[in-house]
Amino acid sequence: MNFKIGGVTERMPDQSKSQKTAHCGYGCRKQKQTHKAKGTVGPRAQQLLHGDSGDGSSSGLPRLKPQIPVIKAFGILKRAAAEVNQDYGLDPKIANAIMKAADEVAEGKLNDHFPLVVWQTGSGTQTNMNVNEVISNRAIEMLGGELGSKKPVHPNDHVNKSQSSNDTFPTAMHIAAAIEVHEVLLPGLQKLHDALDAKSKEFAQIIKIGRTHTQDAVPLTLGQEFSGYVQQVKYATTRIKGAMPRIYELAAGGTAVGTGLNTRIGFAEKVAAKVAALTGLPFVTAPNKFEALAAHDALVELSGAMNTTACSLMKIANDIRFLGSGPRSGLGELILPENEPGSSIMPGKVNPTQCEAVTMVAAQVMGNHVAITIGGSNGHFELNVFKPLMIKNVLHSARLLGDASVSFTENCVVGIQANIERINKLMNESLMLVTALNPHIGYDKAAKIAKTAHKNGSTLKATAIELGYLTAEQFDEWVKPKDMLGPK
Amino acid sequence: MNFKIGGVTERMPDQSKSQKTAHCGYGCRKQKQTHKAKGTVGPRAQQLLHGDSGDGSSSGLPRLKPQIPVIKAFGILKRAAAEVNQDYGLDPKIANAIMKAADEVAEGKLNDHFPLVVWQTGSGTQTNMNVNEVISNRAIEMLGGELGSKKPVHPNDHVNKSQSSNDTFPTAMHIAAAIEVHEVLLPGLQKLHDALDAKSKEFAQIIKIGRTHTQDAVPLTLGQEFSGYVQQVKYATTRIKGAMPRIYELAAGGTAVGTGLNTRIGFAEKVAAKVAALTGLPFVTAPNKFEALAAHDALVELSGAMNTTACSLMKIANDIRFLGSGPRSGLGELILPENEPGSSIMPGKVNPTQCEAVTMVAAQVMGNHVAITIGGSNGHFELNVFKPLMIKNVLHSARLLGDASVSFTENCVVGIQANIERINKLMNESLMLVTALNPHIGYDKAAKIAKTAHKNGSTLKATAIELGYLTAEQFDEWVKPKDMLGPK
Amino acid sequence: MNFKIGGVTERMPDQSKSQKTAHCGYGCRKQKQTHKAKGTVGPRAQQLLHGDSGDGSSSGLPRLKPQIPVIKAFGILKRAAAEVNQDYGLDPKIANAIMKAADEVAEGKLNDHFPLVVWQTGSGTQTNMNVNEVISNRAIEMLGGELGSKKPVHPNDHVNKSQSSNDTFPTAMHIAAAIEVHEVLLPGLQKLHDALDAKSKEFAQIIKIGRTHTQDAVPLTLGQEFSGYVQQVKYATTRIKGAMPRIYELAAGGTAVGTGLNTRIGFAEKVAAKVAALTGLPFVTAPNKFEALAAHDALVELSGAMNTTACSLMKIANDIRFLGSGPRSGLGELILPENEPGSSIMPGKVNPTQCEAVTMVAAQVMGNHVAITIGGSNGHFELNVFKPLMIKNVLHSARLLGDASVSFTENCVVGIQANIERINKLMNESLMLVTALNPHIGYDKAAKIAKTAHKNGSTLKATAIELGYLTAEQFDEWVKPKDMLGPK
Amino acid sequence: MNFKIGGVTERMPDQSKSQKTAHCGYGCRKQKQTHKAKGTVGPRAQQLLHGDSGDGSSSGLPRLKPQIPVIKAFGILKRAAAEVNQDYGLDPKIANAIMKAADEVAEGKLNDHFPLVVWQTGSGTQTNMNVNEVISNRAIEMLGGELGSKKPVHPNDHVNKSQSSNDTFPTAMHIAAAIEVHEVLLPGLQKLHDALDAKSKEFAQIIKIGRTHTQDAVPLTLGQEFSGYVQQVKYATTRIKGAMPRIYELAAGGTAVGTGLNTRIGFAEKVAAKVAALTGLPFVTAPNKFEALAAHDALVELSGAMNTTACSLMKIANDIRFLGSGPRSGLGELILPENEPGSSIMPGKVNPTQCEAVTMVAAQVMGNHVAITIGGSNGHFELNVFKPLMIKNVLHSARLLGDASVSFTENCVVGIQANIERINKLMNESLMLVTALNPHIGYDKAAKIAKTAHKNGSTLKATAIELGYLTAEQFDEWVKPKDMLGPK
Repeated sequence: MNFKIGGVTERMPDQSKSQKTAHCGYGCRKQKQTHKAKGTVGPRAQQLLHGDSGDGSSSGLPRLKPQIPVIKAFGILKRAAAEVNQDYGLDPKIANAIMKAADEVAEGKLNDHFPLVVWQTGSGTQTNMNVNEVISNRAIEMLGGELGSKKPVHPNDHVNKSQSSNDTFPTAMHIAAAIEVHEVLLPGLQKLHDALDAKSKEFAQIIKIGRTHTQDAVPLTLGQEFSGYVQQVKYATTRIKGAMPRIYELAAGGTAVGTGLNTRIGFAEKVAAKVAALTGLPFVTAPNKFEALAAHDALVELSGAMNTTACSLMKIANDIRFLGSGPRSGLGELILPENEPGSSIMPGKVNPTQCEAVTMVAAQVMGNHVAITIGGSNGHFELNVFKPLMIKNVLHSARLLGDASVSFTENCVVGIQANIERINKLMNESLMLVTALNPHIGYDKAAKIAKTAHKNGSTLKATAIELGYLTAEQFDEWVKPKDMLGPK
Repeated sequence: MNFKIGGVTERMPDQSKSQKTAHCGYGCRKQKQTHKAKGTVGPRAQQLLHGDSGDGSSSGLPRLKPQIPVIKAFGILKRAAAEVNQDYGLDPKIANAIMKAADEVAEGKLNDHFPLVVWQTGSGTQTNMNVNEVISNRAIEMLGGELGSKKPVHPNDHVNKSQSSNDTFPTAMHIAAAIEVHEVLLPGLQKLHDALDAKSKEFAQIIKIGRTHTQDAVPLTLGQEFSGYVQQVKYATTRIKGAMPRIYELAAGGTAVGTGLNTRIGFAEKVAAKVAALTGLPFVTAPNKFEALAAHDALVELSGAMNTTACSLMKIANDIRFLGSGPRSGLGELILPENEPGSSIMPGKVNPTQCEAVTMVAAQVMGNHVAITIGGSNGHFELNVFKPLMIKNVLHSARLLGDASVSFTENCVVGIQANIERINKLMNESLMLVTALNPHIGYDKAAKIAKTAHKNGSTLKATAIELGYLTAEQFDEWVKPKDMLGPK
Repeated sequence: MNFKIGGVTERMPDQSKSQKTAHCGYGCRKQKQTHKAKGTVGPRAQQLLHGDSGDGSSSGLPRLKPQIPVIKAFGILKRAAAEVNQDYGLDPKIANAIMKAADEVAEGKLNDHFPLVVWQTGSGTQTNMNVNEVISNRAIEMLGGELGSKKPVHPNDHVNKSQSSNDTFPTAMHIAAAIEVHEVLLPGLQKLHDALDAKSKEFAQIIKIGRTHTQDAVPLTLGQEFSGYVQQVKYATTRIKGAMPRIYELAAGGTAVGTGLNTRIGFAEKVAAKVAALTGLPFVTAPNKFEALAAHDALVELSGAMNTTACSLMKIANDIRFLGSGPRSGLGELILPENEPGSSIMPGKVNPTQCEAVTMVAAQVMGNHVAITIGGSNGHFELNVFKPLMIKNVLHSARLLGDASVSFTENCVVGIQANIERINKLMNESLMLVTALNPHIGYDKAAKIAKTAHKNGSTLKATAIELGYLTAEQFDEWVKPKDMLGPK
Repeated sequence: MNFKIGGVTERMPDQSKSQKTAHCGYGCRKQKQTHKAKGTVGPRAQQLLHGDSGDGSSSGLPRLKPQIPVIKAFGILKRAAAEVNQDYGLDPKIANAIMKAADEVAEGKLNDHFPLVVWQTGSGTQTNMNVNEVISNRAIEMLGGELGSKKPVHPNDHVNKSQSSNDTFPTAMHIAAAIEVHEVLLPGLQKLHDALDAKSKEFAQIIKIGRTHTQDAVPLTLGQEFSGYVQQVKYATTRIKGAMPRIYELAAGGTAVGTGLNTRIGFAEKVAAKVAALTGLPFVTAPNKFEALAAHDALVELSGAMNTTACSLMKIANDIRFLGSGPRSGLGELILPENEPGSSIMPGKVNPTQCEAVTMVAAQVMGNHVAITIGGSNGHFELNVFKPLMIKNVLHSARLLGDASVSFTENCVVGIQANIERINKLMNESLMLVTALNPHIGYDKAAKIAKTAHKNGSTLKATAIELGYLTAEQFDEWVKPKDMLGPK
């Protein structure tokens, strides 16, 4: 196979011959025969279906393929289906071999045998057939048979028994999304939540100026400010969990168009139960298989929850970088961890790189959400054919948000310090504390103080004394920011 | 013409008679005859095509201003606050006058006095002050005072007591969104759900060809096909309801920056309880007021649920217009109601105008969602200042989806008929029925039949007989689409 | 109140006097005093905050209907078609009456007769028929006939001669978009450009600290900083103009499916030429009518240019509000005009309301762009049926951006002042000026100075002297920000 | 370095020691020292800055990293800068070594030494420093020095001379985008254009039924239908080219904040000229460097052109799959190439997989566009810090559209055949041909024919004769679809 990128042709040696077997022994040879693109096609074109287009989809590193979680999910599904098929009469020897091979797929041991990428058919049919063939061949190998002979384990008749690409791919999509949410996204958000919560408590006594419209306003504590972030991340978790019930619904059992043609009564329910047992997640069979094949609203919904999470993280990261701006000419209320040495010449210049990574991730998740939305809205009749696109973006968003939360927590949040001196200074210079004088000297005199102080660039206290409205002691007694932090 | 808003019918005097002619003398009368929506349609549905849906595009009616639901919500809030303030010592005479004036605001009686629009300050401060002043003046008027004197009812000291723009506007946003969801969006979706469900049952016995990848596939019933739509709309409702708990949380009591400065302990909880009592919706005080002012994730979340709903409606409307395409050269399986006379020359040309309106609405809701997302992600410090933008788009989406669902139901869904003759013809000509012969004559002969029939453009039955593989009786016995509709 | 649209001022009688009181008696008078936009502001600018921008949100004025520019465009088109039809044999008496009636439509005199809205059929057929009927009836009236008789001027045979909804609606879309761009969008951007350019020159000598990553960096002039904004707005204009050639292409002459059935050879070219003459804009006939009916890529393209413009305005408005944040606890480098009295208690609190309106508008335009994109991608076969949706959003974006630019210019940009004292203070306290010492005392000593100053919170100068590395005179001679403003 | 993915820790052997040198000998060791993440950080977190998050960014295959075109562009820039620096006095021996090493970077020979990914700092600083160090070490190696000694070629003083991350990264973004557009995107679109154009000519004489609103309409030729697609793709090219003038503007010479501090007069212009010479593309120096660093409107603009292209491709691919739907129960007018064997049981089932890949790509490009838009709108002060996100998505979109166009052309478009029999059948059965009878027998009789035929399911001809309105000969003479294909 040739790849021509940017005018440079890199020939992959031997790939069309023995090397091919060595590299993709279990499935690709077969798969090439079954699914090869039109023979006359040049290299880059072929790349669209069988290669990659710029996002590393077909990289050799298993963990980096966006579809690897989908392959893992297929392993789980195929294993569950084999168990259930055995209940319905599949030869136990064959069923067992399929189960073992499927386990290997689920464990990632056969990742090299899945060269397919996102930009294939919109049903993911090629991926299902790839999985069937890899499992068939690996099972044949375990049973001492000949690779590619389809005996004694046939990819369609045995591995794909009671299944169709049209119900297995959406099933794998839901399994993969649920696992990613539980293994990466939710733990990441929890970690961030806990770190922000700890900071909120640590900063509970630090009174600072509030800002509305980006302008000076009445005070609050730094802990209160962070408590808003805590609430946002807490609700992010609530939102994502709220979308999961529809993700836990599996299409398996719907086969070609949702009717369940060629399956057995009870197959759907049993497969969902097996998948639930294997994953520890509460999967159930989808109550309506027609919806489960023809629409992927559940993924749009989950992406919507992640989109909201992206808004939350964007807000938090923006606040933190602005509050940490400086060191001299910004707000300077927070001191952010210095992960990288700043400029070699400027000590104290700490770029908020973690905030920047988080906000870039947020923008990407919002973009992914639109791609998912468009894919989700364009299904027709009995099958939505934007499946690989949709799951790729969902997994991408989940992984990005989860990883970014962990990195942001560890490399930024836990190390944030309050610049108390600066906070106090801004606090005490603020003109809005004058509000506290109203009950004592009346609105008009208070306003006079504030206006005069603003005009002269002086403090409220000095101005108040200078105007003869009160004494220094009275000022100190009456103007107490800590009395402005809650209802009475 | 009648307009029914939130259960209240407002008859515009004369409009159905001479005034109509006077108002639209040159074209509308004619136009009414030519393009009128289905005669039995209620007023709101008509609004979708001939009136307005939420952005006041075509209308001078105050109620159509996007902010009108916000103004109504403000009326409710101000009334509730006055009641609670009375508990905390506000002069009952003043409190009572405020309550009465606020009720008038909530009832829409003073809509003409709210000229402000979306593109004001991002906090909605001007709207809150507008409300305070209108209520103050109306209360003064009730009490026999002088307009504008601020006596005896002061807009700030009395109407806005224990409040700030910063907590009242988000409170009004949530109240308005919740009311719109309950009065327009959910009832509209329910109506659509019920109509689709009735059709699904009506069509339960009609077997038709399935289509995957837009290509011919194995059969299902038309009822099964519609059941997928039913499930989508059912889940749309589930999703929207799932977002509501965060919408029911009210910011009231947070005042300027979320601390609750200048309020009393218990005020927040009591106001939420009053609003709940006034609206019949389960409002509570927000557990964290800092989040409630500085972020509007709850609106992004609700918009996400509406975005998913838009995907669902786009899918359903697309299917229906393609299944109804023709009359001769399309799929032609459905006969859609003829709301408008088609071309004067082409009988039978029924343009799927309701599907078109629905898909346009879906596109708008998806766009609104992006605007809301961007607004939601750009809050800073203690206040998000994209509030009017966000609520405008949320209300617009809710209104559009609700109204479009009603119009689509009444003017299209309920009148859909199955073209049984056409459905049977496509069904019986289909080559994929050959699948049923596999167990009887084997895969190879079945494939031979199908390939030959495809090549010759003949039927499976004729070809099978011609090839001598089976008799006409055997074919009829073995090839039964109704046995292909579920698991065994 | 005046409204100036497209250069035409329409005075609403009485509104500025007693009627005003009558109309908005309870709150607006007060509210007008409190929140009025800057006194010198012209009518359209005021509209942004207190009126409406393109979606009729707050207004009963027919001209604010989003489709009104489309109706106007239809008037122009129908007039042009009648002229050309006369060349091809249409009775001059009829042609003349049509032309006069069409002129009235183009002038907005018959706006009340167009009740239709966006959410109609996706082809806009109803609007075309509405236009034909209004013109027919008005022409009949002029000729002394009976309204509705279709004699002597028939809506289809005469007004719609050689036309179809399918080519007239896209033609009207392009005419309306082009006019809105030329009358509202480009002049608004030019005004903003000129004001920013004047500020850039006014601020040319003010040296200030630069900020990268929101952190302190090396200096630039405030004029240089504003010159970046000038360039952005200049290119916004370039981008929008760059999209216009495809907008200038008219579908007229394509009739039902693009073939031009029922038209005459030359009709398309002549109509485009007439429209060009009537509007003064370089319209031409579309080189491919099939594309012109079935796709609206040209509108997606134009919306893309407006989307880029929205990014530019968002950036500029964000910068200005952050640079103007304070007055005490923000960056405080700019003093923004105080359009509305700030809080009654806090003198100096100027909320950057104009920046907030601009950023909300930017978010809306980005959302509109997604709606337009989705509509544009979903055309099928010979006709895209998202036409009313697409043009509604395009016109909305153009109007919003144009009006927001004017309002932002008049109520904010022209009044921006530099807080030179504050700018100098931040500048001189900055640690990064130490860079200038490298050539004189070496990197190591310079770094020592900076680190020590940062640690002690002292100035570079004091620290340098204290460390004995140089004299006060040397510091003043070597550390000159004005030498850091360009290449050497 | 550890990577922990989904609970599995994979230790990369030796990486912290000698292996590291072996693997990333030229730059990573140095880079690790300079830019390492906080020491206490766990493995997944580190991944965010130094590893990957789900999109294969850090894959070992050079061509798959999204940032590889950026690295290549950096090679070109560093080479150009060294040449110009030599003009301004840089030691020719050093300059020459830098140029050679930079050429190797540009040629992709050192790709393994660039481990950084998208989710780093938003300025791309780490990438610039990585490049400086790799080139420095490779140049040192060429000159026989010691790796890491910075002698005789210093990464900052020599390789980065007259440059800053803040101007080099945007310069590399523009170079990379321009190259990708010229090498992948435009050639791909041209290929698609040419293939569609050839089909349009091939199909010039095939008359078929038109479809508007997805419903039967008047006829056109299949060639005319395809000519619309040709025009769309032609204009896609026009639009992309129209965005390039701003892409050709390079930020180089702006250094830290756009002032050009530490550069020489003329440096900017000369570097742009060198880059133009090296690439053959008309790069120039940006007229305003402040805009070039602080905003990336040019990338938003280019993405807007690609977003429009995505709409075009979505439309074309949708049409082709619907026109090719069937084989029996769809429209069936086109026969699409059978790239993969269809279902093993259903001959003739050709899934339009290429159309599906194209529409998925289109959805992704639209999503990427939103990510780019959000990134582009959120720059602050002197630096936009969404740079890696923005260029990653721009390159992804360009590559996807270019590759998809080629694949779609080669595997689908060139092989499309017209199903003439089917086209004729649909054409002749169509009721709208009755339009042609109007001039001969009058509207009323024509309408009667059409209505009767529709009601009875008979042909126009049979019905016309049966009704006695005309003879078979007259029908054949008067009803000629080929006379309905254009103006007269």
